[in-house]
Formats: sequence, C-alpha cells, structure tokens
Amino acid sequence: MPADQLVADLTAALDAIPLIDPHSHIDPLAPVSKSLDDILGYHYYTELAHSAGMSQEPLGKDVSPRDRVRAIVGHMDRYDNTAQYRWFLDIARTFLGYDGTRITAGDADKLLDAAETTFAQPDWEKQVFAKTKLEKIFLTNEFDDPLEGFDTNVYVPCLRTDSLVFQLDRAETRERLFKATGVQLRDAGSLRKALATLFLHFTRKGAKACAISLPPDFEPAHYDDEYLYEQIRHHDCRDIGPGVFWLIAELCRDFKLPFDLMIGVNRRVYVNGVHQGQDLFDQRTSLIQYKRVFNAFPEVTFPVSVLTSAQNQELVAYSWIFPNVVPNGHWWYSNVPPYIRKDLGERLSAVPKTKLIGYYSDAYKLEFVLPKYAMYRRILATTLADDFVRPGVLSEAGAVALGTRLLRDNVRDTFKV
Amino acid sequence: MPADQLVADLTAALDAIPLIDPHSHIDPLAPVSKSLDDILGYHYYTELAHSAGMSQEPLGKDVSPRDRVRAIVGHMDRYDNTAQYRWFLDIARTFLGYDGTRITAGDADKLLDAAETTFAQPDWEKQVFAKTKLEKIFLTNEFDDPLEGFDTNVYVPCLRTDSLVFQLDRAETRERLFKATGVQLRDAGSLRKALATLFLHFTRKGAKACAISLPPDFEPAHYDDEYLYEQIRHHDCRDIGPGVFWLIAELCRDFKLPFDLMIGVNRRVYVNGVHQGQDLFDQRTSLIQYKRVFNAFPEVTFPVSVLTSAQNQELVAYSWIFPNVVPNGHWWYSNVPPYIRKDLGERLSAVPKTKLIGYYSDAYKLEFVLPKYAMYRRILATTLADDFVRPGVLSEAGAVALGTRLLRDNVRDTFKV
Amino acid sequence: MPADQLVADLTAALDAIPLIDPHSHIDPLAPVSKSLDDILGYHYYTELAHSAGMSQEPLGKDVSPRDRVRAIVGHMDRYDNTAQYRWFLDIARTFLGYDGTRITAGDADKLLDAAETTFAQPDWEKQVFAKTKLEKIFLTNEFDDPLEGFDTNVYVPCLRTDSLVFQLDRAETRERLFKATGVQLRDAGSLRKALATLFLHFTRKGAKACAISLPPDFEPAHYDDEYLYEQIRHHDCRDIGPGVFWLIAELCRDFKLPFDLMIGVNRRVYVNGVHQGQDLFDQRTSLIQYKRVFNAFPEVTFPVSVLTSAQNQELVAYSWIFPNVVPNGHWWYSNVPPYIRKDLGERLSAVPKTKLIGYYSDAYKLEFVLPKYAMYRRILATTLADDFVRPGVLSEAGAVALGTRLLRDNVRDTFKV
Repeated sequence: MPADQLVADLTAALDAIPLIDPHSHIDPLAPVSKSLDDILGYHYYTELAHSAGMSQEPLGKDVSPRDRVRAIVGHMDRYDNTAQYRWFLDIARTFLGYDGTRITAGDADKLLDAAETTFAQPDWEKQVFAKTKLEKIFLTNEFDDPLEGFDTNVYVPCLRTDSLVFQLDRAETRERLFKATGVQLRDAGSLRKALATLFLHFTRKGAKACAISLPPDFEPAHYDDEYLYEQIRHHDCRDIGPGVFWLIAELCRDFKLPFDLMIGVNRRVYVNGVHQGQDLFDQRTSLIQYKRVFNAFPEVTFPVSVLTSAQNQELVAYSWIFPNVVPNGHWWYSNVPPYIRKDLGERLSAVPKTKLIGYYSDAYKLEFVLPKYAMYRRILATTLADDFVRPGVLSEAGAVALGTRLLRDNVRDTFKV
Repeated sequence: MPADQLVADLTAALDAIPLIDPHSHIDPLAPVSKSLDDILGYHYYTELAHSAGMSQEPLGKDVSPRDRVRAIVGHMDRYDNTAQYRWFLDIARTFLGYDGTRITAGDADKLLDAAETTFAQPDWEKQVFAKTKLEKIFLTNEFDDPLEGFDTNVYVPCLRTDSLVFQLDRAETRERLFKATGVQLRDAGSLRKALATLFLHFTRKGAKACAISLPPDFEPAHYDDEYLYEQIRHHDCRDIGPGVFWLIAELCRDFKLPFDLMIGVNRRVYVNGVHQGQDLFDQRTSLIQYKRVFNAFPEVTFPVSVLTSAQNQELVAYSWIFPNVVPNGHWWYSNVPPYIRKDLGERLSAVPKTKLIGYYSDAYKLEFVLPKYAMYRRILATTLADDFVRPGVLSEAGAVALGTRLLRDNVRDTFKV
Repeated sequence: MPADQLVADLTAALDAIPLIDPHSHIDPLAPVSKSLDDILGYHYYTELAHSAGMSQEPLGKDVSPRDRVRAIVGHMDRYDNTAQYRWFLDIARTFLGYDGTRITAGDADKLLDAAETTFAQPDWEKQVFAKTKLEKIFLTNEFDDPLEGFDTNVYVPCLRTDSLVFQLDRAETRERLFKATGVQLRDAGSLRKALATLFLHFTRKGAKACAISLPPDFEPAHYDDEYLYEQIRHHDCRDIGPGVFWLIAELCRDFKLPFDLMIGVNRRVYVNGVHQGQDLFDQRTSLIQYKRVFNAFPEVTFPVSVLTSAQNQELVAYSWIFPNVVPNGHWWYSNVPPYIRKDLGERLSAVPKTKLIGYYSDAYKLEFVLPKYAMYRRILATTLADDFVRPGVLSEAGAVALGTRLLRDNVRDTFKV
C-alpha cells in the first residue's frame, strides 16, 4: 500500500469505527489468550512453521508451551514475509509492548514473558475489546451447545450445521442430536422436528445466523420424505447431506436467519498436516451448484464466502443478480492482501453497496480481531482512495461512509443486530 | 485511475478517435431513447435495483414510466458504487444537463422531464452520433430480419445465430426459417441451403459478421449428413446444435464473414429475475472445447468474447497461438473496470496488437455508447501510461497509436468496414 | 513499472546477483546462438509472427536463414507490443549494439550481420556468461542422454521423464530404454531396475533434479506389480503412465532428487501450428490430482510450475500447507509481466520465503537468459517496493535480501548446488 496522506487519512477514519465481527471461532468461555502458546497455536503459525521445515514434535502434548513457542518463533525467519507473520508482529506491538521491527528466535522468551504478564490482567478481555473497538462478535456453535454462561448480546451465537449435514451418518452425531433435542430420528418428520428444536433453542438464545462450510463438489438437493425415511431407517442416514441442507434452509426461512455459506474446502487433503492445517481445495467448483437453493429460498439471505479468488467473479455476478446472495468477507486462503485487494475492488464495482459484508475475523482468540481488521482496513482505504476518491467519484467523506457501510452498517442490517 | 496528466492527455487523445462499435443490440428503427424509461429499462439498472431490494412491481406493464423511473432512481443510493451507476451519471451529465455529483431519489422527476425534452428533438439521433463521435455501429439481427428501412452503412447488420443453433427443435423456429428462406427442412442438404439463403440475404444487405452466444458446456461438432437427416426427420431437430454451428462456420468461411463467439452464458439461472436479468454462468469452461473448430476453419476469423476474467488467460494463449482467434472486447460480467484493466493488460502483453479488438458497447440504445466507451478509454489510457509510457517502452504518440489500433483500426481490418 | 528511484535502486541491486538458472532447454554442446536465425527461431517469435499473419513458408528448411529472419522481423510491427518482442529488443541492444527504440523490417539485415560477427567470436559463450552474470544453468536431458562433453558443474543435468511416463507404449521408447540401461522390460521389477539405472547414471553425472511436464487431466497413481506386469507383457505398456510416474517419485526419494512438476499443458492443440507452437491448455485442472503423491512422498521436494495464473492460488495454498510443495518460477503462458506480478505478489504474501524459487529462463539459447531474468528482476523490484518497502514492512536492504533469496539462495538450497 502506498504510504500516502489520503490513504493514511482514510485508514484513520476507518480505524475509528466500532466493529461487529460477523464470523469467528471464539470460545465465549475462554475468549482471550492465556499465553503466547494460545496465540502461536493458531493454525496459521503451526502450518507455516511446519511448511517451512519445523517437524511436528514441538506440537506434541508433552512439549512445554515455552519450547513450543520457541520452535514456532524460531522458524519465523523463514516465513516473516507473510501476511500472517504481520498479524503476529501487530499483536506483539499493540498488546505486548514489542518495539522492534523483525521478530526472530531471540525474541521468543521475552514475548512469552510479556504475554504471561499481560494476559494475566483481570480485565484483559475488556482491554482487548476496548483496544479493538469491538462491540459484538459472532460465534460458531455446535448444534448441541447449551449457549450458556456468556452475554449473547456481545458474543452472538451462530448455529454451525456442518456436522448435521455431513456427519449424520455417524451414530455419535445422531446420539448428540437426540440428547440436544429429545427427538429420535425415525423419518423426515422427526428429522424436521429435531432440526426445528435446535433452531428454536438457538434463536431463543439470540442466534443471528446459521452457517456451514462446504466442499467444492457439494450441491444441495430437495429430497422427498420417502427417500429421507429410507435413508434414516435403512442406511444410517448415509446419503442425506444435500437433503438435510435443504431442510436447514427451510428453517432459516421460517426462523428468519441468514444462512452463511462458506464454499470450497476439501477436508484432510494433507493427512499428516498439523491440527487444522490439513484442508485444501479443488478450484473447479461453481455457484451454479446452488442455483436451485438460491431460487427456492428468496426469503433467505445467503452471505456467501468463497475459498478462492478465482471464484470471486461468480460471487460478484450471483450477488449482482440474486437479491438473496450477499458477498461475505475474505476467507482463509483468500484472506491475504493480494486477494482481498482484487476481490474487494471487483465487488465494489458491480454489487450494490448495501449488500457487501466487508470482513470477518474468523479468529479463535480475541487478540486476532485487531490485526486482521487492521489489514483489511488498510486495503479498504487503499481501494477507496484509488478507485473512488482519486478518480473524483467520491469525496473523502463519501469514501469513509462507503467504508463504514462495508465494515459495520451492512453487518447490522443483514444479521439484524 | 490516478488523476495524472499523462493519463489525462492520453484519454483526451483517445477521446478524439471516431468509433466503429462492432457489437450492439441497437434497433436501427428505434436507435435512440424516447424517455428516461428507455434508459433505465436497460437490464443493468433493473437488475441492480432488484438485487438491492426493489420488488418487480414497478417493472409491470401497467406501471407508468414515471413511477418506474422513480423506483429505479429511488434505489440508486443502494448501488451508486457501481460502474453501471457511473454510466448513468455520465448520461445525465452529458445528455441531460445534470450538474450534480450524486443522483438520488429527488432527481428522478427532473431527469425524466429533461429527458423528455431532450429526446424529443428531431435531430436527437444525429446529436448522439455527433457527441459520441460514432461512425458505424454493428447490430445483432435475428436470422429472419428483413434488414430494411435503415442505412446499413451506418447500422451494420450482423447475423445472430443463437436460435438456429439452440432452438431449431422448436416448430416455431423451423417455421420462421421456412418463411425467411422458402426452404423446407428435410435433410442436411436442405438445412445447408436454408442457412446459405440467410447468409446470402445478410451479406447482400451489408452484414459484416455472424455471431452467437454459447453456454459454458457447448462444444461444436461435425455431424455427418446421415445423422443430421435422422435428427431432422425423426427427432424434430432435437440434438443438432453442435452440428448446425459447424454448418454456420462453413458458411462463414464461404461468405468470408468473421464468426463472433460469446462464450460462457447459462440462460435462466435466476428464474424469477427481471427481464434479461436471469443469466449467469459456470466458471468451469475451456476454449479447448473449440479446438476442433479452430483447427477446421483456418480461413474464418473468430473474434472471441469470454464471460469471465478467469478465462482471459485461455483467450490470450489461444489468440497468441491460433492465427484465426482474436480477443474481442469485454463482455457483460467482465465489462467493469477491474476486469477490463486486468484482461486488457494481459492481452497487450502477449497477443499481437493487430489482433486486439478493444471494445464494443453491447448497447440497446445509442445513448449508452458514449459512457461505456468513455469508461474503456480511461482504462486504456491508464494501461498505456502504466505499462508502456512510464516504463519507457512507448512514447506518448506511440501509445496513442496503439490505443487507436485497439479502438478503431483493428475493427476496420477484422470486419472489413 | 513506475520509473521511480526506489524501483531503480532495487533493480540495480538485484542485477548484481550471480544467477543459477534452475530450468532451461540449453544444448550444452551448442549453448549459444550461431546466427540471428537461432535467436528468432525460438518458438515465441515463430508463433507470434505466424499468429499475426505470417505463413509458415519462411519456416521451411529450404528457406535461407536471411529470408527467414527478414520474414519474422518483418512482422514485428504487428507484435511489438508483446513482452517477447521486448526480450528481443533487449538482446539486440545488449548483445548486438542496436541503439534504436523500435525494431522494424528495415533492421533485419543489419541485425543479422551484427549477429554473425558477434556470435562468431571464439569466446562468445564466455562473454554471454559474463554479461548475464550466469554461474550455472540446469539442462533438460532425455533419459538416454550420455551427458558427456560438457562441464556438468556449469551445465547441470536434469532427468526429463516425459517420454518414460507418456511414451513407453511406443516400441521406439522401449528400445531406447533398453539401449540406455541394458534392461529388458518384462515386469514391474525390471521396470524399476531400468529406471534406477537411469537415476544412477544421471546422479553420477551430477544431475540435480528430475522433471516432467504434465497434461491438465493427469493424476499419478500407485499401481500394483501385477497390473504393471499385465500392461508390460500384454498391452505394450499402454496404460501405465500414472504408475511409471509413481515409480519415478520413489526413485527421486531414494536418490534424493527434487521432482519438478510442470502442470497443465495439452500437446498438439493447434495441429498445424509452428514447431513447438501447437500446445495449449484446459484451465480446468487442480492440484488435488496430486494429493496422493504429495502425501506419499514427504521426503521428495516437488518444485511445481503451473501453466495458468488462475491456478496460482492453488499453488500458493498447497505450498503453504505441504512442506514438500514449492512454487517454481513462471512458466510459458504465465511468463509475461501481468501474470508474474500477480502470481509473485500472491506467493510472497502467504508462502514461507525459504520455499520460493523465483524464476528460471526456460531458454533454448543462452542469449535469452539475460532478457528474461531482466524482465523478472524489474517485476521483483517493483513488487518488493510496493508490497514491502513502501508500506514500511522491509528496509531497502531487507528487500534486496528477500529478492536474493528468491533469485539465488533458494535455488541453491532446494537443488543442493
């Protein structure tokens, strides 16, 4: 990003906007880090260190947190070119008092000690919220989460449905579903009832969205009740994923919940990868696979994340045409500056601005919300400067208003928070 | 685009070049708008307003043009970030005396009235040609168009063949073909004769191209006469599309007409979308599907448009290798600045400059030629400045010559106008 | 590229780094050009001239080199916008004393004569090495290459395995394999033995890599010995390509050689194209096809080149996750500035810097190493300036160090030279 005054001014203005983060994996009962090990245990760092040559030994349960942190920081000089390294540098500077310019092996102990002191402060969670200007953050809750012990007005529940769609063929999942709902799966009717019970539980607890991540070859389908009965009774729910998805979409309609689709991930491609560092993708996928579901549920808003930047043009076009399709943030392998810049510029050129959900952190610990949003805001400011202010299309104030819409207004409107 | 002097100078130079627009949907008997309703009835605006929340009620036949315009303009504050909005702003400024910076609901009536007066001028068509510096514009004519009542030297006929390739299984199409040619379809021979009769009619009337839009999974094929006979006689021409395409390519060869291929559109994906706002695509397509036809017809020039920017590299590579493949403009979902900039830079780096057809308007009304070409020229000027003049590869005069080639010279050479 | 001081400084610093070029098609017994015909016989020029309208007549064996050069240079005013033209301009300026700014038909004879004198100098090869700051260059050797008569410390052998994987069904290939190894193919065991004999020969001669180019639909597979036996004995090795690939990967593991994968080329798409100008691609391919091989051979480093820029995000993600997958240069249809800039920026944002092999020349004659690397270094300098130095992420010295890593250090580490 050019270090010019306009971009600096826009960034400063955007930095002042309170955040509502519409997707994360925060555990509301342990939202902040307790040690640097929590920070560097984030799969981005274990993945990059491992990819750059670190064995998986330091990741073992018997290894002390200090040794693990030393190993991961010790490999940083192999991946300090990455955006993910910069998130960590930003965390070190903002939260841990680090004032150097490049973190190397020698910094591990110092940072670890600083983190221990810092994170032990009783009001640490509150401090992170304040420094981050964070107002609310969405969770990702398993369907049998009791959703208790936290303020659902701040930690907004979201019903994650992956296991319902993809793992109902496991006795364990069906058992969990029974425990959560009291409903025994026998046929389509009881399946609907069980799912409705979950939606009731979640919406009563303030859930504002339903979500699922999907493999590249997935295609939702409307199965008739007889087929569902057959699968439930005689095949242990083996081939019903596409149909369960359909039932969930029906409930999103009935309960007025947006249905977040995160499209494109193949699980366990690198079978010996680190924890959460095994998933990749097949670029050959298309939103045409969702044609039927987008048509069948005009009342349901689908905030869609795509895993690859090449699919962004499909997302732009489908959002331009379908009133109920909405581009949602920059996900995972596309959550680095070159892809964000490209995808954001494309979306801003052809999708109504009221439909653009700019960003979500996808964070596991609250400390990551700040550096990730900071990255996004720098790119957003650059994009607004280059594509709108400099060509004379928007004033600086107009650009800030547009940025505010992406950062906050559309999150409020789409998810009704 | 950076608002710098070099880009401004290049833009000014390119703005002076008289245009030959090689693809549009202009009705030569009603080429200009009669009201603002004609302008805002363009599917880009109905699509975006609908996508941003407008119901389809204002688009009904019983709704007055004034109420429809109010509804579409009334939703503009939801999509005034888009390139399409800027086309409209450009029209309002250039043709309707609008001097504001942002069109909102309150401007609807004023603009409607201004349009009524302006468009009613008896020489309006002439004025649009003059302001646009438009010399000729290609049409898109159904095969049974009589091509009468207009100056074919200005409104250049182009034989659109979609219905011949994709709808010959409809009795209505075969009936129209019979009426247009006097030939009854009985076998491959009569099919050839009917098609040749169309080509004769079109070329006598000054047609300079044949054109077709194609779904992503289409692959042309050479069918033998027996198979065609079988399909024509016993299956109501059900499965002959790929073979009809082949016969049309043969006639393009015999009649020396370029064959415009517009690749990648799936029709009626959003089945309840607005008129002309229902089509999307599947990014999974490849020019390899045209391998046989490119090889079989070395004498036919194929100006190719691809629907997605991701396929632009295929278009660049196929144009670099096949003498008869020529990149043609920026189509539909790729006709917004980020994709034009990317695709243009790629084409200029690896395809012979004599083969690059820069742009076409795709317009339904003449008033759109000006803002669309203005958008393209700004991007062309920026690209020439950044990729050629600033690195010292071309002088400013050299850059203007290269731009002229893309804008005008290659249209003349390729289509022999 | 902007002609600014920072970029100029970075370019100058990168220009000083001695090169180890990890992939070329140099014939070590005739490494430099003997005439301008050798330079312009490079398929890029014959392709572009032919694509721009030159018949294939001047390429005939009976045509004099002078007439051929005149024809190819004579068409240059049709493709002097391309990156490939700029390589030639760079050669003319650096090696042939050309001081103009645009090469046209009138320059052909002068350049031909200059080349004759220049290339005839007894120390020409040495001069090219010196001007290019070239230290070592990798070859691409057929499996039965004797690898004799040259300094394998400078011209580093690389075992090209395309014909083993894709043409073992030809009697001629099996005959060559027998001659090279003395092993008669009878079963899986003898196939392994023959291949191991080749690896032994190559590594004894200093080979540092094994390489293969692959069509977009290829997927390696582990075949059992019985199946291989069946194919070898009863089907003339017809369907064993994916299994031969697997055996070669096993030998790369055993002989500790990196296995260069160049993914995505379809051979002979334009069947009447010029020599080496007939290959294109199908963008629909995925690295998921290599999932099994990447998992099965964690000890083998796979430097991967992809043919299309759209697949670069897969390459980035697979390299970020798999320790043994390494992005390798910018290949063929992606070896022009817009794709290099995009792909490089993406790789630098998310792949550990120690895994990035920046560039290779792919050259057939040594004179091309200089202009191709010059193009790459300009883009690398621009990328380092815009993405690292200007945003305050790296100092200028830090950026040069990062550039050096991509240009040289990682080649040394990956290939152990």
